[in-house]
Amino acid sequence: MTTQNSNQSQKKSVVTKYQNVTVIGAGAIGLSWTALFLANDLSVIVNDPRPDVKEATLKGLEEISPTLKALGYDVSKLTSKLSFEADLAKAVKGADLIQENGPENVAFKQELYAQIEANAKPTALILSSSSGIPASVFTEKMKDASRVLLGHPFNPPHLIPLVEVVPGKRTSKEAVGEAVQFYTAIGKSPIVIEKEIPGFVANRLQSALLRESIYLVSQGVVTMEGLDQIVSSSIGLRWAAAGPFKTFTLGGGTGGFPHFLKQFASPMENAWKGLGNPHFDTATTDLLLEQSNNSYGKIPYEVLAKERDEQQLAVLHALNK
Amino acid sequence: MTTQNSNQSQKKSVVTKYQNVTVIGAGAIGLSWTALFLANDLSVIVNDPRPDVKEATLKGLEEISPTLKALGYDVSKLTSKLSFEADLAKAVKGADLIQENGPENVAFKQELYAQIEANAKPTALILSSSSGIPASVFTEKMKDASRVLLGHPFNPPHLIPLVEVVPGKRTSKEAVGEAVQFYTAIGKSPIVIEKEIPGFVANRLQSALLRESIYLVSQGVVTMEGLDQIVSSSIGLRWAAAGPFKTFTLGGGTGGFPHFLKQFASPMENAWKGLGNPHFDTATTDLLLEQSNNSYGKIPYEVLAKERDEQQLAVLHALNK
Repeated sequence: MTTQNSNQSQKKSVVTKYQNVTVIGAGAIGLSWTALFLANDLSVIVNDPRPDVKEATLKGLEEISPTLKALGYDVSKLTSKLSFEADLAKAVKGADLIQENGPENVAFKQELYAQIEANAKPTALILSSSSGIPASVFTEKMKDASRVLLGHPFNPPHLIPLVEVVPGKRTSKEAVGEAVQFYTAIGKSPIVIEKEIPGFVANRLQSALLRESIYLVSQGVVTMEGLDQIVSSSIGLRWAAAGPFKTFTLGGGTGGFPHFLKQFASPMENAWKGLGNPHFDTATTDLLLEQSNNSYGKIPYEVLAKERDEQQLAVLHALNK
Repeated sequence: MTTQNSNQSQKKSVVTKYQNVTVIGAGAIGLSWTALFLANDLSVIVNDPRPDVKEATLKGLEEISPTLKALGYDVSKLTSKLSFEADLAKAVKGADLIQENGPENVAFKQELYAQIEANAKPTALILSSSSGIPASVFTEKMKDASRVLLGHPFNPPHLIPLVEVVPGKRTSKEAVGEAVQFYTAIGKSPIVIEKEIPGFVANRLQSALLRESIYLVSQGVVTMEGLDQIVSSSIGLRWAAAGPFKTFTLGGGTGGFPHFLKQFASPMENAWKGLGNPHFDTATTDLLLEQSNNSYGKIPYEVLAKERDEQQLAVLHALNK
């Protein structure tokens, strides 16, 4: 996120270069992107075959609007540059930039990208929110895939800064640079991922922590709520302020990372051997469901979501200062 | 952390009950505890055989003092209730509460705890910062271990809220309750861990994330700095606001955790199989050191630490509102 002033000047160049955006797929992720693009004063065409797309999108934008406002955006004319086009060919025709959020299905996506190529301008920058299928795979039926790559958000994209920018084998360096420039200009934190590894980086790291979390709860070491409190009052707090390698480096004192590594590499590798390898067997699943029923399950979704969102916005604001 | 007002009323009962605190071991952790106890208006005797303990502690307190002030503490008379006693028997004699930060050595700790028992009041609450040796092991030479348990902080204890409260096999329920009450009263977030598992919870979760972090950097998927930025702009941010299980629950929408589990248990378990299992071999170590040299290694320790601490304080303040 940026301050209002620098946001204004960055916006300008984005508006000039990528004024016409097409969002393909109006599910939760597509909706969130749509909201963010509109808040950044871009013109957005939403393409989705579902008959209630207009109603659902307008309702969703209304729900997201207070968060955008809290992030510093002017939401008074949020929908003035929004339109809908159910026909893909027509929807992508004039697009300077496309953000695709279709189903995670290889055959579907390959066909979709072939159609995009047949109808979009050759200069359009084409970005996919795909979390599972890499660009090298879903662009297989395209002749020219040089301007296609992943812009994989961490849900929801209108709120969480990270966008993992993952080029495919045929993506040009220029397109990677443009994607980074675009996402930065609309207030995101794009990071380029060098290899198309399953789960990319954020989801793999999340997955590693979740595995041990489920192991510890399943072994009766700590409750779900206890574990959440531990994370939020130690490592979460820490990693919001400084990632693991910066933390490592400071852990080495004035000797820095080399000193840290010398002292802790061996005990660290040893500790890894003791980490858990849980399975979602009946006993584990039952225990998790029981704990869930007796804790978060008792709180209405809206209350829990509001609590989380308020905390999230507070942390975001704190880090933007 | 608590607000100034509730802090005041909580402090009162702590001051009444645990006015006289002895801190054993004046290394980094012992120093940080000393600072926090003094800031909470407790009388602290520091026990450490090193000849320069007084100079080192006073210097350390001076360095920590601005952070305590930023946390809302009055630091104008920080050292007025501080004293030093190199003789263990004398140091623990009048203690209402002991926080032990000795070396992580089983034989040393067992002898230390036998001596504490021989000299401290039977009503004293005895807490260990040990991160490696559980209470059931280091209390083996004690006759009565009912008032001894772990109060394991996440470094540094004066700043990070979490304290893992881990009872040993002979610890009484009353002592666990008192430890939770005490740490809460001085502004910490104590969480009871039900089993004496190596690494307890926070360090195991950290270890799980570090393993995958080192794997991803060693495979050239992302740089150290890129990974840190990913963590701080997505999962760190998220987990500072809401732990993994609350996040799961919200990920299930209005269907909550049961819906989430139904949809994602199987793909999640599948993803775990693909996570990395790195080793600190020469190639990995060399790559890490090279990246470190070219990034954080170029920044002076003080600059990096200041940056981290400012961000950390900002996040803490945001979450306390």
